[in-house]
Amino acid sequence: MEKSALSAALRRVRQTTPLVHNITNYVTVNDCANALLACGGSPIMSDEPLDVGDIQTICGGLVLNIGTLNEHTIEGMKVAAAKASELGHPIVLDPVGAGASTLRTETAGMLLDSYDVKVIRANMSEVKALAGAAAATRGVDVNPDDVVTEDNLQASAAFARQMAAKTGAVMAVTGAIDIVADAGCAFAIRNGSPIMGKITGAGCMLTCVVAAYAVANPDALLEGVVAAVANMGVAGEIAETRMQPVDGNASFRTYLIDALYNMNGQALEAVARVEEV
Amino acid sequence: MEKSALSAALRRVRQTTPLVHNITNYVTVNDCANALLACGGSPIMSDEPLDVGDIQTICGGLVLNIGTLNEHTIEGMKVAAAKASELGHPIVLDPVGAGASTLRTETAGMLLDSYDVKVIRANMSEVKALAGAAAATRGVDVNPDDVVTEDNLQASAAFARQMAAKTGAVMAVTGAIDIVADAGCAFAIRNGSPIMGKITGAGCMLTCVVAAYAVANPDALLEGVVAAVANMGVAGEIAETRMQPVDGNASFRTYLIDALYNMNGQALEAVARVEEV
Amino acid sequence: MEKSALSAALRRVRQTTPLVHNITNYVTVNDCANALLACGGSPIMSDEPLDVGDIQTICGGLVLNIGTLNEHTIEGMKVAAAKASELGHPIVLDPVGAGASTLRTETAGMLLDSYDVKVIRANMSEVKALAGAAAATRGVDVNPDDVVTEDNLQASAAFARQMAAKTGAVMAVTGAIDIVADAGCAFAIRNGSPIMGKITGAGCMLTCVVAAYAVANPDALLEGVVAAVANMGVAGEIAETRMQPVDGNASFRTYLIDALYNMNGQALEAVARVEEV
Repeated sequence: MEKSALSAALRRVRQTTPLVHNITNYVTVNDCANALLACGGSPIMSDEPLDVGDIQTICGGLVLNIGTLNEHTIEGMKVAAAKASELGHPIVLDPVGAGASTLRTETAGMLLDSYDVKVIRANMSEVKALAGAAAATRGVDVNPDDVVTEDNLQASAAFARQMAAKTGAVMAVTGAIDIVADAGCAFAIRNGSPIMGKITGAGCMLTCVVAAYAVANPDALLEGVVAAVANMGVAGEIAETRMQPVDGNASFRTYLIDALYNMNGQALEAVARVEEV
Repeated sequence: MEKSALSAALRRVRQTTPLVHNITNYVTVNDCANALLACGGSPIMSDEPLDVGDIQTICGGLVLNIGTLNEHTIEGMKVAAAKASELGHPIVLDPVGAGASTLRTETAGMLLDSYDVKVIRANMSEVKALAGAAAATRGVDVNPDDVVTEDNLQASAAFARQMAAKTGAVMAVTGAIDIVADAGCAFAIRNGSPIMGKITGAGCMLTCVVAAYAVANPDALLEGVVAAVANMGVAGEIAETRMQPVDGNASFRTYLIDALYNMNGQALEAVARVEEV
Repeated sequence: MEKSALSAALRRVRQTTPLVHNITNYVTVNDCANALLACGGSPIMSDEPLDVGDIQTICGGLVLNIGTLNEHTIEGMKVAAAKASELGHPIVLDPVGAGASTLRTETAGMLLDSYDVKVIRANMSEVKALAGAAAATRGVDVNPDDVVTEDNLQASAAFARQMAAKTGAVMAVTGAIDIVADAGCAFAIRNGSPIMGKITGAGCMLTCVVAAYAVANPDALLEGVVAAVANMGVAGEIAETRMQPVDGNASFRTYLIDALYNMNGQALEAVARVEEV
């Protein structure tokens, strides 16, 4: 993939201000909204079944994040996803904690089977849970046995391509090494900072940024998702460079969103490490 | 309006620590609580119908923000608003996204018609939706066609006065130029920073600050609302002066609340640009 | 208590990364998650009755915080607490606003009577409400009449020991002077910053940190709770030293979580002021 495809995808986000409808958890929802604004999108949150149809209609895409599921919001997800499918708006699924509970695994599976999910953004444990191949899970974090490493990168990329083929969705499997794949090809993205694992919401924010890129790049979805993942990773690196000895994860969170806000195509092209695998 | 009215209103907030009950959205609720503390008030959040009556009883006022409405919290809003009306506590309505969905428009209208709303804090698109004159809406942001400008300021102020007369509430219509009006007169407030539109929650926070001022200034409600709006605008300007090149919207959010925290009457009088229109 | 007990307790948190299940309010939940990560734990949030049993099973402990109770989450609390009791996982109760409403007082009492609550973290007004001895309450803040001072410290410590004996829980009664007590002995902790009262969530965050320490220190629960309370107080002091004149409560919140993140045993031992009373 040409580096210029990344900056082109970013530019389309900045130029079109994609309006993204989010049904997401209440833990990281504020960071999700500010990350969407920072990357060039515009957020709206609505989970009430009586509200989500109208809201989805005025938006360009939909995030379904199951981080703090409840029965009422599952109904909201169904109505919103049906409307998004009807309108041809991209749906991005973040199956937070799939594998950690039956409700989460089954709800993620139901959403995936019932609606036209265009992108899945998850860690490898969650993807394995969706595939029915979950090992023991550790809550919302990846199981150490599932971490993508240089040693298992080829096998991990093959698995991501298979899951893309099976689900019809672009896979964004993120961790120390990120993999973005459709059925035909896979890319490894080696950006980011280990401190991203020490804040809550780095994954949730990325899911929303992916949605903004998906809405803004309908004719280049795979490139758009790669660009979004690289954008977040590069932002993490920039944030890490700002860390002073007294700073901790709270400052890092601020710096990360700030870096999304200030990102431009030149910085993205210069720092992104994207490789087909 | 004398500048000293602004600082007097601020002083009464700081001296009385008004306790404000908030039924608000889960996106910006943390910022709302910290903004209330910063401006000199004290927040409590409660939306459960079985809880809100007791909570409103010990508070001085009520915020109703419909940003993430659901059926259960609408019931909570009704019980809380009935109690506030009974006790003579000011109710401040923030009709987030009115015009963007039928549920939001109808709920805002129902609250306005059924209870003694003392202040409405909204953008111009939301106010037009309440007036039944909505143009196409763009989610939670103002429609470009509705923006208050120097060119339409007189007409906008006249419309705000009409809405104040119709609803019996002080109108705080905020944007690049803010208008605060009762039925008799209107003020333009030309403070703030464009970066306030790049964070989530600037409007929600202002609504809560307005409520603190309304509780603390029962005998000078219009002046109190003008002071609250000017206070937030001046805080935005101070926040903007702190921005370094690496800073983005996340840092700005921190600086904005910090500026509310450090605001004093002298700074407010010096920077506030309030004009009767 | 030896100072080395504090650093030993902290070390066990850092070494074991306790996974804590939180059913908590939506106001401060993001800060709770980041505070848990900062202190060395790992958070998961889940309140849906159909989800909480599975989630509690993979966790080491449970936080029940009643800050924004609703009927549905009360059901979730019951299911989660039953599972935690069955598995012998420590339950930490934060009775936010007990005394401020009948629902809060009764729910806190029901949870305390029905499940094996191991620690109660609260302000003195809330503890008095649990004891059926509540004075007039002021929302989520302590009533000025209930503040622990040097003058009433012995009586306050005796009351905390009595409540520990009555409830079977370690009491963490926090304020300007903190008291941690079991039925046999009580400790005063004189750390912290007055600015902690100017942010939302200092108490909620502490409750989560206490839970991480309780999970990691099952054989030294009292020492663990003292260490957690001292850790938060010392973090508050460190945060205060970072405050610049333009900084306010929003910056303080960031600095507080940062200080938890950077805390080590040496700093904790050097600054903690723990005394048996």
